[in-house]
Amino acid sequence: MTITKPTLIIDQEKCKRNIEQMVAKAKKHGLVFRPHFKTHQSLDIGHWFKDFGVTKITVSSLTMATYFSKDWDDITVAFPTNILEIDTINTLAKKITLNLSVENEESAVFLGKHLKHNVNIFLKTDVGYHRTGLNPVETNTIDTILDIISNNPLLHFTGFLGHSGHTYNCKTKACIEKIHAQSLQVMAFLKKIYTESYPNLIASLGDTPSCSVSEDFSGIDEIRPGNFVFYDLTQNQIGANSIAQIAVAMASPIVAIHNERSEIVVYCGGVHLSKDRLIDEGKTIFGRIAKKTKNGWGGLISDAYVKSLSQEHGVISMPKDEIVNYNIGDLLMILPVHSCMAADLMKSYMTLDGHHISKI
Amino acid sequence: MTITKPTLIIDQEKCKRNIEQMVAKAKKHGLVFRPHFKTHQSLDIGHWFKDFGVTKITVSSLTMATYFSKDWDDITVAFPTNILEIDTINTLAKKITLNLSVENEESAVFLGKHLKHNVNIFLKTDVGYHRTGLNPVETNTIDTILDIISNNPLLHFTGFLGHSGHTYNCKTKACIEKIHAQSLQVMAFLKKIYTESYPNLIASLGDTPSCSVSEDFSGIDEIRPGNFVFYDLTQNQIGANSIAQIAVAMASPIVAIHNERSEIVVYCGGVHLSKDRLIDEGKTIFGRIAKKTKNGWGGLISDAYVKSLSQEHGVISMPKDEIVNYNIGDLLMILPVHSCMAADLMKSYMTLDGHHISKI
Repeated sequence: MTITKPTLIIDQEKCKRNIEQMVAKAKKHGLVFRPHFKTHQSLDIGHWFKDFGVTKITVSSLTMATYFSKDWDDITVAFPTNILEIDTINTLAKKITLNLSVENEESAVFLGKHLKHNVNIFLKTDVGYHRTGLNPVETNTIDTILDIISNNPLLHFTGFLGHSGHTYNCKTKACIEKIHAQSLQVMAFLKKIYTESYPNLIASLGDTPSCSVSEDFSGIDEIRPGNFVFYDLTQNQIGANSIAQIAVAMASPIVAIHNERSEIVVYCGGVHLSKDRLIDEGKTIFGRIAKKTKNGWGGLISDAYVKSLSQEHGVISMPKDEIVNYNIGDLLMILPVHSCMAADLMKSYMTLDGHHISKI
Repeated sequence: MTITKPTLIIDQEKCKRNIEQMVAKAKKHGLVFRPHFKTHQSLDIGHWFKDFGVTKITVSSLTMATYFSKDWDDITVAFPTNILEIDTINTLAKKITLNLSVENEESAVFLGKHLKHNVNIFLKTDVGYHRTGLNPVETNTIDTILDIISNNPLLHFTGFLGHSGHTYNCKTKACIEKIHAQSLQVMAFLKKIYTESYPNLIASLGDTPSCSVSEDFSGIDEIRPGNFVFYDLTQNQIGANSIAQIAVAMASPIVAIHNERSEIVVYCGGVHLSKDRLIDEGKTIFGRIAKKTKNGWGGLISDAYVKSLSQEHGVISMPKDEIVNYNIGDLLMILPVHSCMAADLMKSYMTLDGHHISKI
């Protein structure tokens, strides 16, 4: 297949190695591995997980749950239940083991009234990120919701689900470990209180930085990392992965070269990479450039980066001694700042040997 | 139609009024109006332009040109020619009047070798934005490309195409007027040099801020604004439109309410609104909240804004006296920071009376 437009290339070997490593880590720590599929959103890539024995997954929307329910029969929706989608919830609950995330009384009451099939309920717990979730020390609220659940034969309390999204603000492994330790403490606190009444309850945590960096998962039962399947520049900056582990790159046609300001313009904009950015040494960066190799890409080109993105334009700052190597019509390989967002924007992936990988 | 998920609502009346006003302005100044359709990307909305007598359009990719070629037979691709898409160029050039944008010798030579049908060529001119375009004072380079064009029977030089994208950095009308005046000067300079050899050459300019604010279009022949069809918070901050002119809003289901920190969480994330942001009084803002009315939306809720976006989550900062008015399952109406990017992400629009409007 010939590349003529921005194309998200996947290095299958790197990707499978990333999966294998996380599978091994979960196994080593005796954890259920329920990877978050919001990153790749692909049934094809899902098969690679199946090859490593994965049987349960996480998604972040009912739309994704519906898509993946073709191949997967145990899916957690790690997003506060959107009661407006009750029809989709009922359709899915009839078909698969559906685990919903509930973080308020209203949603539990609504589900109790409108559910037609069995659903497992995780109570979304705020482990310190303060985006969503129940405050773990407000056990009165938790108890109220647990009462609603236990009084309904279709609702089944399964456990506590936390997400330490604040690790994304870290720049060091020590920072990640500190946040992760606090999250483990929250989970341990809740288990201590509720294990007697619910001996099988699951404590589930799930950010890629903690799951990549830490070797301490004491007291929890399940991990749900997602981004690790591809990794990216943000995770690299956080300290979660090396550049060599990044499994996707955007092949982007060069449409203009401006030697006088050491800039290359590519066909690859915010509608391909997303406008996610990182700050490095005071510079705003929307992507970095990897060396194109015969079959894929290698290391980074020093000091080459995406300095701005419009809808379809990407402006690359390229050092003077490198810019001479590029011509109009060449492809630049851009490593994304945030692979989940870039993957969401693209309609498919292409493997290094030119095969098409479908997605939602 | 019932809304259950993030849905981009279009206020048809506001949108048509925006179109009507820009049509009137072009007419008043004797300009060809060639609106940029990258904002709405919709054949249906294209019909509204036809109703106002528009016959020529601009797009930013050959993919969009192909989509719009169903209804439009004169299309400018205001993006540096991507030579890798030569097959698409030839297919389109056979079917419609295709105007390409060229900014370097290599692309002109390549087109000369591989074109099979007539194509009009705009020379992309850098009017000061410094993203792409030929330096207008380097007339030697311009002459070289013009020679390549005139020596090929399929290439037809049409004029100079500029884009004052740096008006987007303005915060005042005076700033926009200053940049616009400089762009007019560049165009006048080129016309003075080249009109003798090319008496029909077109000077085309096209940013929404200048076209919205200025009443001076002396010396140019054509305008290509795009964003004005919807407008947004960025254009409002620049001074290009009022809040009342914004024609799209994202209806977003409320999934969590956290009174203790005055926050609402909606199902509407970076995959719906994009991660485009603006800075206002030191705060980073990803959207603002309009009052929901019986049939659409009204003014802004003071001090309510989207403070952060993850993939599917939007966190809204909502004043304490307003948050009491909202319940789980209600819809919040979010005005986008950048309507082009939000529209690109969504698969369709919904009118206020519940009709579906298709897009690419």
